[in-house]
Amino acid sequence: MVDARFHSRTGPYRLDLLAALVEADIVGGQGDLLLDDVAPLSTAQAGDIAFFDNRLYLEVFKSSQSSACVARPDAVSHAPAGMALLVCDNPYFAYALIAEKFYPPPIPTAAIHPTATIARDAELGAQCRVDAGAVIGAGAVLGAGCSIGPHAVIGSGVEMGAGCSIGAHVRIQYALLGSGVVVHPGVSIGQDGFGFATKAGRHHRVPQLGRVVIGDDVDIGANTTIDRGSGPDTVIGQGCMIDNLVQIGHNVVLGKGCVIVAQTGISGSTKLGDYVMVGGQAGLTGHLTIGSGAQVAAQSGVMRDVSAGEVVAGSPCVPVRHWHRQTVAVARLAEASRTKTPKSKTLKSKPPRARPQRS
Amino acid sequence: MVDARFHSRTGPYRLDLLAALVEADIVGGQGDLLLDDVAPLSTAQAGDIAFFDNRLYLEVFKSSQSSACVARPDAVSHAPAGMALLVCDNPYFAYALIAEKFYPPPIPTAAIHPTATIARDAELGAQCRVDAGAVIGAGAVLGAGCSIGPHAVIGSGVEMGAGCSIGAHVRIQYALLGSGVVVHPGVSIGQDGFGFATKAGRHHRVPQLGRVVIGDDVDIGANTTIDRGSGPDTVIGQGCMIDNLVQIGHNVVLGKGCVIVAQTGISGSTKLGDYVMVGGQAGLTGHLTIGSGAQVAAQSGVMRDVSAGEVVAGSPCVPVRHWHRQTVAVARLAEASRTKTPKSKTLKSKPPRARPQRS
Amino acid sequence: MVDARFHSRTGPYRLDLLAALVEADIVGGQGDLLLDDVAPLSTAQAGDIAFFDNRLYLEVFKSSQSSACVARPDAVSHAPAGMALLVCDNPYFAYALIAEKFYPPPIPTAAIHPTATIARDAELGAQCRVDAGAVIGAGAVLGAGCSIGPHAVIGSGVEMGAGCSIGAHVRIQYALLGSGVVVHPGVSIGQDGFGFATKAGRHHRVPQLGRVVIGDDVDIGANTTIDRGSGPDTVIGQGCMIDNLVQIGHNVVLGKGCVIVAQTGISGSTKLGDYVMVGGQAGLTGHLTIGSGAQVAAQSGVMRDVSAGEVVAGSPCVPVRHWHRQTVAVARLAEASRTKTPKSKTLKSKPPRARPQRS
Repeated sequence: MVDARFHSRTGPYRLDLLAALVEADIVGGQGDLLLDDVAPLSTAQAGDIAFFDNRLYLEVFKSSQSSACVARPDAVSHAPAGMALLVCDNPYFAYALIAEKFYPPPIPTAAIHPTATIARDAELGAQCRVDAGAVIGAGAVLGAGCSIGPHAVIGSGVEMGAGCSIGAHVRIQYALLGSGVVVHPGVSIGQDGFGFATKAGRHHRVPQLGRVVIGDDVDIGANTTIDRGSGPDTVIGQGCMIDNLVQIGHNVVLGKGCVIVAQTGISGSTKLGDYVMVGGQAGLTGHLTIGSGAQVAAQSGVMRDVSAGEVVAGSPCVPVRHWHRQTVAVARLAEASRTKTPKSKTLKSKPPRARPQRS
Repeated sequence: MVDARFHSRTGPYRLDLLAALVEADIVGGQGDLLLDDVAPLSTAQAGDIAFFDNRLYLEVFKSSQSSACVARPDAVSHAPAGMALLVCDNPYFAYALIAEKFYPPPIPTAAIHPTATIARDAELGAQCRVDAGAVIGAGAVLGAGCSIGPHAVIGSGVEMGAGCSIGAHVRIQYALLGSGVVVHPGVSIGQDGFGFATKAGRHHRVPQLGRVVIGDDVDIGANTTIDRGSGPDTVIGQGCMIDNLVQIGHNVVLGKGCVIVAQTGISGSTKLGDYVMVGGQAGLTGHLTIGSGAQVAAQSGVMRDVSAGEVVAGSPCVPVRHWHRQTVAVARLAEASRTKTPKSKTLKSKPPRARPQRS
Repeated sequence: MVDARFHSRTGPYRLDLLAALVEADIVGGQGDLLLDDVAPLSTAQAGDIAFFDNRLYLEVFKSSQSSACVARPDAVSHAPAGMALLVCDNPYFAYALIAEKFYPPPIPTAAIHPTATIARDAELGAQCRVDAGAVIGAGAVLGAGCSIGPHAVIGSGVEMGAGCSIGAHVRIQYALLGSGVVVHPGVSIGQDGFGFATKAGRHHRVPQLGRVVIGDDVDIGANTTIDRGSGPDTVIGQGCMIDNLVQIGHNVVLGKGCVIVAQTGISGSTKLGDYVMVGGQAGLTGHLTIGSGAQVAAQSGVMRDVSAGEVVAGSPCVPVRHWHRQTVAVARLAEASRTKTPKSKTLKSKPPRARPQRS
C-alpha cells in the first residue's frame, strides 16, 4: 500500500476506463469493477491492480490476491481464479500509464522562495518554481513551468526549455537544456573536462571551451557528472535515460533515446548512435563510435568501435556469443586443471578482499 | 600526532583503566602507566598507545616506539622490549573504544541557524541542531538530538529517529530513517528509481511509488545514491555500513549488518540477507537473492543468486576457489601460447588506455 | 565556434606572436597572419588555429579548413595546402597555451555575498570571492585570491593557500590545502574513512583522527570523494590530476603528479609514488605500494604491489604484455571449443543484462 505521506492517490477508477486508457482487452472481469490502487503482484489485495511482465515472477502471479492485473496474452492461462486481466503487448508501459492515472505527478506550485538568489537579468518563464537557496546566474533563461530545487545552482548564461525539473543541489554551468529535462539531485553538469597537457612534469589545464547541449525529455540520475566539451560540445540526445553516478566525458555525443545504466563511464569524444543500451558499470574508452541500437553488457570494457545493433560483453569486450563461449571455456579449462594440479599451487594467487581495508 | 585543530583530546588515562574498558589483559606493563594519546604503530612515541591487528605490519610492530599496544595473544612474543601490551582477541575493536575514550565524538550544540528554512509543521525533537541553509520540509519529523548539516535538504514527510547525523548537502526524500543513522555529505536518498517503459521509441517514466526505509545505526558514505522503491520499498537493514559512491537501486533489500564497499552497484529488486559483505566496485544485477553471510569479492559481476555463506569472485562470478583456478589456468594458457605464437600475432588486440583521453 | 555566452575571447593574434609563445617554428605561413580563434580541426574555418596531436584524426587534419594548426614535425608532409603550421614536439601543450591566450581564465571578482555565512574568526586573504550561501567555519584560513563557490562548505579549521578555486556544493572538513588547488563541484573531502570494528554482530565506528593534506596545484573532479586518514593522513601530492567520481580511501598517499581517471577507487592505506597513471574504473585494494611512473590500465583490479614503471592490466592485474597474451589465448580457446561443443551447452551461462532492471 502506497504511503499517503509521500504520494497522493486519486480514483477509484473503473476497469473499463483503465482498459481504454492503455488500449487493452479485458479478460475474465467486468468493466465496472472498481479499482482503488496500484500494487506489486506480491502484496496486492482486493481492489488493487498490478502488472505481470517478467517471467521470473510467474509463481507470484499465479498466487496473487490482486483484483486485476495487466499482462501479456500468454499469461491468461496462468491467471488465478477471479483475477481480471487487462491484456496487452506491453504490460509495463500500460502499468506506467495506470500508475500515473492513480498518482498524477505533483505540479510544483509556482513560487520564488525569498532565500533564492536570482540575477537581475535572468529570465524566468511563467509559472516557475524556485526553491530555498537556489542560485540563478546572470543571463540565465528558464522556460515556463520550470522547477529549480533547493540550493540548485544555475550558472550564468545557462538556458533551459519549458517544464524542466532540476533537483536539490544540482549545479549546471555552460549548458543548454531542452524542454522537459529531469535532473535528479546532486548532478554536476558542465564543469571542465579532464583535459591537460603535460610538460616537464607539470600537468597544465587546457581551456575547455565547449558546452553541454541536452535534448528534450532527457532524464539524468542522481550524482551523475557530465563534463562540458573541450571545444566541440558534449551532447545528450533527446529522450536519453541516464542512471545514477554515471560519468560522461568531454565531447561525448549520445544520440536519441540511449539508456545508460548506473556507474557507467564514457570517455572523451566517444560517440553513440540512437537507442544504444549500456549496462551498469561499463566503461568505454575515448574516441570510439558505437552504432545505433548497439547493446553493451554490464561491466564491459569497450576499447573498440561497436557496430549498429551489435551486442558486446566482457573486458575487453567481444560479441556476446563469444563472451559466453569464453566464459564456458575458461570454466572448463580451470576444472580440467584441477585434476592435474596439486592443491598448493592453485593457492598461489592472492584472493581479492571482500572485506574493507583497515589502516 | 593528532592535529588539535580538528580533534579534541581528553586524558591522559592509566593503562589499567583502558584495560578494563576493553576487557584486555595487561602483559609487560604496569597498570599505572599513563597514556597521552593514540597513534599508528609506525609513528607512535613514548606516551602513546597503538594497535596491531594486521600481520602485514609485523615488522612495524617489532620496531615500534609506542609505550603501549593492543594486540592478540600470538603477538606477545614479537613485542619490542619495554612495550606494554593490552592483550585481547579483537585488538581493532578495542582500539576503537580506546580512541573514542581519548577523542569522544563531539556533541553538536543544539541550535537552529537563522538561515535554515524549516516548514511550520515540521516537528523537531529536543536538542536538535540545524545548520546554515538547511531545509526541512512540511510534515517532516526529527527525533531528539538530530544534527542536520549545512544546506542539507530533508523532504516533506521524511521521518528520522533520535540521534541521526545528516551531513552537508545531503538530500532525503520519501524516506523513513531509524535512530542513530549517519549520512555522510553529498548522499542522495529517495529520488526516483530508474524505471521507465518504452513504446514507439519513447521512454516513459514509471511512477515510483515506494519509499526508502533505513534501520537504526546505518552508516551511509559520501556521494552514495539510494533510489526509492517503485511500489515496494527500498530497505536498508539495521547496522548496515555503506561506503562512498555506492548505487542502490529501487526495491533493493539489505538485511542487517551488511557491509557494502565503495563504488558497488546493486540493481533493482535484488535482496541481500544479513551480514553480506560486498567488496568495492562489485556489480549485482537485478532480482537476485544473496544469502546471509555471503561474501562477494571486489569487482565481481554477480548475475545469479548466491547461497548463504557462499564466497564468490570474478565477472561473471564463480565460487572463489574456482576463480583462483581460472586465474591460474588462464595465466598458464597464456604462458604456453607464448612459446607457440609469433610475437606479431599477440599484439593484435589493442591495449587499454591508462592515459586520459583527449579531444 | 566558441559560444560567447559562456567564454570571452581576446585577440586576434599574429601567428608569429603565438609561435613565440609556444616556442614553435612556423612552416608554410607568414608571421603576420592574423588568427581570430581556436577551433577543433573538424570545424575550424579561415581565421582559426587548431591542433593535431592524435593520429586517429589524420584524415580530419588533411582536409581541415583551419588557417593554422599546431602539429608535430612528422605532420608537415600531410598538411593541406595553404595551412600554416606551428611545428613543435608537444602540440597539445602548445594548444593549451594558445587557447589560454585567446580565452584567459576569468578572474573571479572579489566579493563576499551577503548570504554567505562566515565564522567571525575565519581568516580570508585579500581579494577572496565567497559566493551565495557559502559557509566558512570557525578558524578556517583562506589564502589570497581564493574563490568559494555557491553553497560550498568549508569546515572548521580548514586551511587553504592562495588562489584556490572551490566549486559549488563542495564540502571540505579536516583538511589542509596548498595553493592553486581546483576542486570541482560536488566533491566531498575529509569525511570519516570507512573504518569500523565488528563485535557480536555490531559494526562499531572507529574514530578517524587524521586529516586530508592536499599539495599545490591539485585538480579534483566533480563528485569525487576523499576520506580523511584514520590516524595517519590521507595525502594528495602536488600537481595530481583527479577525475570525476573517484574514491580515495583513508590513509591513501598519492605522490606528485599522479593522474587518476574517472570512477577509479583506491582502498585504504595504499601508497602511490610520483606520476602514477591509473585508468578509469580501476580498483586498487588496500595496503599496496605502487611505484613511481607505474601505469594501471582502465578497469584493472590491482591486488598486489606494482613496481616503479611497471604497466599492468586486467583483474587480477598482470603485466600488460601478459594481459594481451591472456586475452588472445582465451579468445582462441573459446574459438577452438566452438567446433567441439554442441550449441546448447554454450548457452548454459546466463547473459549479462544490458537492460535496466524493473521491479
